[in-house]
Formats: sequence, C-alpha cells, structure tokens
Amino acid sequence: MFRVDLNSDIGESFGNYVLGMDEEVLKHITSANIACGFHAGDAMVMDKTVTIAKKLNTKIGVHPGFPDLMGFGRREMIISYDETKNYVKYQIGALWAFAKSQGVELQHVKPHGALYNMAAKDAQMAKAIAEAVYDVDKELILVGLANSVMIKMGKEIGLKVANEVFADRAYNADGSLVSRNIKGSVIHDRDVAISRVIRMVKDNKVTSVTGEDINIQADTICVHGDNPSALLFVQEIRKALEGEGVKVEPICSFIK
Amino acid sequence: MFRVDLNSDIGESFGNYVLGMDEEVLKHITSANIACGFHAGDAMVMDKTVTIAKKLNTKIGVHPGFPDLMGFGRREMIISYDETKNYVKYQIGALWAFAKSQGVELQHVKPHGALYNMAAKDAQMAKAIAEAVYDVDKELILVGLANSVMIKMGKEIGLKVANEVFADRAYNADGSLVSRNIKGSVIHDRDVAISRVIRMVKDNKVTSVTGEDINIQADTICVHGDNPSALLFVQEIRKALEGEGVKVEPICSFIK
Amino acid sequence: MFRVDLNSDIGESFGNYVLGMDEEVLKHITSANIACGFHAGDAMVMDKTVTIAKKLNTKIGVHPGFPDLMGFGRREMIISYDETKNYVKYQIGALWAFAKSQGVELQHVKPHGALYNMAAKDAQMAKAIAEAVYDVDKELILVGLANSVMIKMGKEIGLKVANEVFADRAYNADGSLVSRNIKGSVIHDRDVAISRVIRMVKDNKVTSVTGEDINIQADTICVHGDNPSALLFVQEIRKALEGEGVKVEPICSFIK
Amino acid sequence: MFRVDLNSDIGESFGNYVLGMDEEVLKHITSANIACGFHAGDAMVMDKTVTIAKKLNTKIGVHPGFPDLMGFGRREMIISYDETKNYVKYQIGALWAFAKSQGVELQHVKPHGALYNMAAKDAQMAKAIAEAVYDVDKELILVGLANSVMIKMGKEIGLKVANEVFADRAYNADGSLVSRNIKGSVIHDRDVAISRVIRMVKDNKVTSVTGEDINIQADTICVHGDNPSALLFVQEIRKALEGEGVKVEPICSFIK
Repeated sequence: MFRVDLNSDIGESFGNYVLGMDEEVLKHITSANIACGFHAGDAMVMDKTVTIAKKLNTKIGVHPGFPDLMGFGRREMIISYDETKNYVKYQIGALWAFAKSQGVELQHVKPHGALYNMAAKDAQMAKAIAEAVYDVDKELILVGLANSVMIKMGKEIGLKVANEVFADRAYNADGSLVSRNIKGSVIHDRDVAISRVIRMVKDNKVTSVTGEDINIQADTICVHGDNPSALLFVQEIRKALEGEGVKVEPICSFIK
Repeated sequence: MFRVDLNSDIGESFGNYVLGMDEEVLKHITSANIACGFHAGDAMVMDKTVTIAKKLNTKIGVHPGFPDLMGFGRREMIISYDETKNYVKYQIGALWAFAKSQGVELQHVKPHGALYNMAAKDAQMAKAIAEAVYDVDKELILVGLANSVMIKMGKEIGLKVANEVFADRAYNADGSLVSRNIKGSVIHDRDVAISRVIRMVKDNKVTSVTGEDINIQADTICVHGDNPSALLFVQEIRKALEGEGVKVEPICSFIK
Repeated sequence: MFRVDLNSDIGESFGNYVLGMDEEVLKHITSANIACGFHAGDAMVMDKTVTIAKKLNTKIGVHPGFPDLMGFGRREMIISYDETKNYVKYQIGALWAFAKSQGVELQHVKPHGALYNMAAKDAQMAKAIAEAVYDVDKELILVGLANSVMIKMGKEIGLKVANEVFADRAYNADGSLVSRNIKGSVIHDRDVAISRVIRMVKDNKVTSVTGEDINIQADTICVHGDNPSALLFVQEIRKALEGEGVKVEPICSFIK
Repeated sequence: MFRVDLNSDIGESFGNYVLGMDEEVLKHITSANIACGFHAGDAMVMDKTVTIAKKLNTKIGVHPGFPDLMGFGRREMIISYDETKNYVKYQIGALWAFAKSQGVELQHVKPHGALYNMAAKDAQMAKAIAEAVYDVDKELILVGLANSVMIKMGKEIGLKVANEVFADRAYNADGSLVSRNIKGSVIHDRDVAISRVIRMVKDNKVTSVTGEDINIQADTICVHGDNPSALLFVQEIRKALEGEGVKVEPICSFIK
C-alpha cells in the first residue's frame, strides 16, 4: 500500500499580522509545521494553532527558522554550529510547551526557509540541526529535502527521517531543487504537478529539468495555504492521491 | 530544622553583552532563575547556563519576563490575560529544551522584574502566570513575593509555592516591598540585612518600615551576583545562615 | 471657507506581512502617518510608502509608537520621560532619511496607538513627545486628539498643532473618546458618522454620548484603509465634505 | 604635513547592557562611529553618546550594521541590494535626529562588522551603501577599508571617502585584512603595531603577512575602547603619531 503525508507551514501570523488560511488548510493536511517566533509566529499564534490542530487531529511539528522576522527566515545567515543547534533547541522547546499544555505530542521538526535550504547542502548545519532534535527528543521525526544532506545527517545521528517532495517545483538531475531564480523552477500546470506527485509517491521517480528520470523518496508532500487557489490545490492533490489508492496519513503512522 | 533556599537571577547576558558573574554566583546559591530570551538571555546563554548549573548541581528554574529586551523586562506592560499566559508558557518551554538536552529537570518558575511586581498585586496577572505553569507542568514550584497575590493564586491553582524574601529591601506593614523610589527602601547595612534574613527564616518575622513586626514566610532568599561585592554578600549570608543552624537547600527539597 | 485634512495610518506592513490598502487610500487622503519600525513598518516599507506618497503628492508625517511590534504599539508601556523623548526622536529621524532621499519634507508627527492615547491624558508623556518633535524640527506640526493634553502641551512647547477628530467614535462630555470597551463607542451608521464629521468641521460641535453638545476643533479627520469597505467610506466622507463646500487639504496648508 | 584621524566604534551599549569605555575613549579619538540600534545601541544610548561627543568636540558618524542584535552585526546576512540601501538610510536618519537635536552635524558613515567586511569585497553591497549615503546626504564622508571595493564605489558614486587602516591587524599582499581565523592575523606587539601605523600614515606603506611592501592610504586609524588596556593603547598611538609630527584631526578637516 502507498502512503504519503501532506505537510504545510502553519502559524506564520505575528501579532496584528495575519498570514495564511490556517484553519482551512489544517483540515486537508496531515502534518502542520508550526512557526516558533524566530522567523514568524508568536506565543499567541502558537497556542491558537496547536488548539486548532488538536481539534482537527492534525499532527504538529516544529518549524524552526533563523532569528530574522524582518526577512521571514528566508535570508541566509552565517551562524555557528552551536548557534544553529541552540536556536533549534529553543524553538522546539517553545512549541513543546503549547503541545504539552494541550496534551498533544510533537511529531516532527522541519527547518524553515533559508535554514532548510542551507541544511540541504551544508553538512555542518545539517548536523547541528539533527543533534539539536536528537538531544531534545530522539523520537521526533526530522523532515528534510528528499535525498539531501539533511536526510543523510538525520539518519547518521539516529533520527527517524521523512523525505519531503514538492509538487510544484522542478528538480535538477542531482535531486536538488531548481533555484527559484531560474525560469521553469516552478510548475504552474496543476495537472502536471499532480501527475508528478503521484509518480513520485508510487514509482519513486521524477523527471528532472534536464530530462532524466531520477530516484526520489516521497514521504511527505509540501503544500501551501496562502490563498484560496493554493487551498483548492491542496484538496485536488489529496483527492488525486486518494483516487490512485494512496493513503494520506501523518508521517508518524508509517515512518518508523 | 530550619531550611531556606538561596536564589539568584542568572543567564541575563545576551549575544555579545555580558551581565553578571554567573559562574561564581552559581556556586553559592541553591536555585538559579534563568532568563529565557524575552527580557534577557538567548539560546546560547541558556545552553551555557544550564550546563554550568548542572555541573555545580544547582537547581534551575524559569525566569519569564515581558517581551522587552530594551527595557530588561523592568517596564510595566499592559498585556492581556491570554498574552501573559502564553508568554509564560513559551518561556518555560524554551528553557525546558535545554534542561531536557542536559538530562536535568526544571525546578521552579519565578517571574521577572515588572511581571513579578505586577503579579504580586494583580490577581488576574497572577492567575494567568499560575495557570501557564500548571498547564505546562504542575510539578513546577511557583516562586513569588512572600504573602503576595502571586503566592495566593499559585496555591489556588494547585501549585506548590515558595515565598520569596529580600535581604536588602524594606517592607511595608502589609508585607509588600517599599518602592525603590522611596528613601530607605534599600537596606545598605549588611549586618542589619543579615540579621533580618535570619529572623525571617527562623522566626518568620520582619520589622516593617513603619516599625511593626509582620509575619513573613521565608522559603527562598533573593540574592544578586552583579559584582564582586554582591557576590561576597551572598557568601556572607550563606555563612551566617549556616552558622545559625539553617540548612541552605534548594526549594525542591523542602517545598512539597 | 472651511478646510479640513484627512489623515490615515499608512506603511504598517512589516517584512513579509502586508497590512492595509496603502496605495489606494493614499489617493484619497491628504496626510499619511507613516509607521517607523517600532510598532509596525520597516525600512523597505518606509521607502516604498514615501515613494508612493510623493507620486500622489500626499503629505507625509511620522507615526511614532512604542517599541512593541508584537503588540502593534497598542499596549500601554510605562516608559520614562527620556525614553519617550528619545524613542520619538529616533523614529522621526528614521523617516526623515527616506523623505530627504526623495526630496520631500516631513509635514507632521502623530503618535500611534497606546502612545497617542496615553499622551492625550498624561502631561509628562505629552511633554516628552512635544519636546522631541521641537528639538528635531520645530516646523513639524504635532497631531493629537482634539482638546487633549497632547494639543495643549504641543502649543506650550511652541509647536504648530492639529486637532484630530474621529468620524466613527463616540465622545464623552469632556471631549475624550469613549473607550472601545464600552458599548456604543463606535458609530457604525455611516450617514450618522458623516453628519457628525460635517458638523464638527463646520460648527465645531459634536454631540457627546451623554447627549450634551461639546465644542471640538476639527483640523484633521482620522480615516482607515484596512479593507475595501473602509476605503469606500474614506471616499464617501471626502465627497460629503466637498459637497458641503469644505476644502479637503493637507494640514500644512492651513495650520500656521 | 601629515594628518590622520583616529576613529572608534562607540555607543554599543543597549538597554541595561553596558559595553565599552565610551566616555574615556571619546576624549582620545577624533571621530566616533555610533551604533544605531540594528546591531547595537538604542535611542537612549545614541542620545547620551551624541551629548558626550558634542561636549568633547569629537566628530560623530553613523555606524550602520545588519539587523542582528543577537549576533552584534558580526554574522553575514544575504540581504538584497534594496534592503542594504534602505537599512543604511534608516540608520543614518535615526542618528541624524539626535545630532540635529544637539545642533551638531554628522561627519561620516562607516559600516559595521559583517556589513563592513562584505562591502569591502562585494561591489553590489558597496554600491548600495554608497548610494544610500549619497541619497540622504552627499556631504557625508564614507569610511571603508583602505583600497577596498567600498572605497572605490564610494568615489564612483561621488562621495568623499576615507581609507581606514588597522594598527593591530595583518594585511594580505592584495591589501585585504588577514582573516581572524588565521594565525598571525592580529598583531599583539604594541611597538610593532605603532611602527606600522606610523609608516602607513607617513609613507603609505605596510609590510604584508607574506613579506611584500604594499601601498596603503591611511586617512583614519581604527582603535578600540573595550577595556583599560585598549584605552591605554589609543593614547599611546596618539602620542606616538604626534611625536612623529603627525597631526591627529577628524577626517572632515582634511578629506575634501
């Protein structure tokens, strides 16, 4: 049987600023990556997000980012190994408090933005993140870019890992994502995107931007809930997957 | 047998900024209140502080404050009940991650600065803090100003509480601290301060600024490690207490 | 001839967070209060806002707030006289740099949120703000709640002042705003709101919540551009005023 | 006649955190680079620093940094051209307000930490900084690493520039600083450091770490006031320069 998780970045509002259609998207995904106040989110938003996720029985995870609210964690910062490790620990703990208060468990950790992208390639940064997760709670699943250094390092440290794939992004022949600055990096045709996702999940294959078929493990698919159109696409992907006999479940139910 | 705890605010450095003689004062106290990044402290400082406290076997607790680094958490902020509750939860969680990583337990929560002072009088704020602590971990001891609304509310919510007294501060007849703006609020004579502390611990009495003896419960004494002189005073208080047969121990060993 | 200014809070976006229909509302108002990075806004947003305002020939002013992005500057903070003064100076300077770069002049300063409300009643806070403005540039017009301590203090310090009125808010008999917590504080009937505004501008009168007519000077009317409905209301107010023969102009054209 | 400026980073305290012996070092230098609240400093510190500098007749300049208080502006951040430009403008304006209030003029702009180092090599970042300065006030002198891209770009944009040299740092053969990670990057022998400084000022030469003599323009020498020993060294350098007939003056008196 085929199984896959649908994850989305949630809880990215801050103070008076509202971002994302969280309540809606939480109904359609199986795992929520919750911002922890460094690149987005705050204590009020975290509490509210955990409350809604619990009610909907959506699994929650930590979404740690760089300490850069102004840049939404999307700007690379050259921070040390220890800084990376401690920033991740801090953010895990912060979200843990809200999960603990509500009697729910943290399922996973998925780095955000520039931290995610850097850790996909930089072994030291990946190691710092993986160690932070392991030290705080070795049962947490580490989510990273499929086939990346982050996944490799998570395994080495002894964590359960989940390979993440993107429905709407083009891949290089080496399995990395085509940079957003390059034309063709984003797949706008929804039918093409859905076909690719189904192939990744069922055949573990995707066609790279240069035409080769590459191997890819698809444990979890990243989806977005920024606007009504994105939200609709989440529902379409889910329906298409289920129509193909793929069971859409949280990663904790099949990543061991 | 008489028992008392010595507590101090620790881990108040931030980034490049160093504050306090933490490594020294941690040797002489029994409980450390560790800043959590809102009014002071950061993830690097928290990690280092927990590491040192563990090595010295000093108990650690959470020292949550207002989100006001620029004002060091000493400025009153009119925040809502839910904001208070969630800010405290967030900070408990953040420190928990470092404690968990090191295999040590959090012993207590003591609000910082303006949050401490407001919660000593404001029942709603005190309730929000007590509920936050209870919801995250009901075994945590809540430290508040002796006889204050914070202590009363902690008990009502079902928490273990520790009454805090100050060696160097004058008390009003109602048990509240004389405001720092008023002359005579700080006791500069060390011998007088020490005598008062011993009387508070052994007889549960202190003479108020207006001359009356008032009842006061002294579970923990607040001391400072800002400079060599303050550090020396900590050692003097401890020695004097022990000379009087008072056992200086962390609150967890006698607050049940 | 009757003249009045229409002002609105603009440039309240931050980083990735978008707030307000700035480009639209800037077309219909005569004075924009631009956030300066303390309670909202950032350097990118400030640059963009000044650029658009310049193109539309809308006058710009400084909108200083408390250093509380998480609370959007709406939470009271008990800060010192010097802190107030220096925080206001800092924010004036920050916006000045963008105005200077574009070759436009700052017209006014209007405190934001809790700073505005506190300064309407607290003479010390009002004085600190007025002195900050005067020290940096004594030609800047200080905008405050009509009849408030802020206006009085601005005059005393030697500044030009503009009395601000609200179309959609009820007034107490003493000229202060009815607190938002009280029922009836906000006037939802647009026709009533517009009639009140016209009366305030032409007759300098408004009926208080308790039924008395009170004197009120209306130099500038606060309007909002948060959503399409609010934006439409701005256009309706402007049209109604112009229909009554009131000239809608920036305060600098009639406040001397 | 030989002339040189002595500059130091000043006003790096923040809130309750005190850094540097500002009042002392301001007596011995001719130009102060004042932090503006991004990587260090706050409105209170800026006001105090400008006040002291004015009293001592020490020239003041803007010391803009990355928005990274936690990293003290020493961590590289990959920010855009527009972000760089607007962050620099914002910080110039913020300091301008305090200078304007005190009736003193801003003399120069010197980027801080990682921004300084990146701009020494990255032409786009250098250009963004130079344009920001030019747009706000084209009379401001831009201070950058001697012979660097920052200096070149400042000239191209049309600014007056000042070449900065370091007494205690080793130089590569291409005129760049030897990285702090490399052994021998810092010159600890004070006599050697002083001799090098005098040679740079009088002969425009310095011996690189690989033994070659390189050409270097020394308009201003960077000194530190972090501790009593550093402070003493400032006095020694100044005395040695004056003993060699070098006039120690602010850059505005000889950079045209």
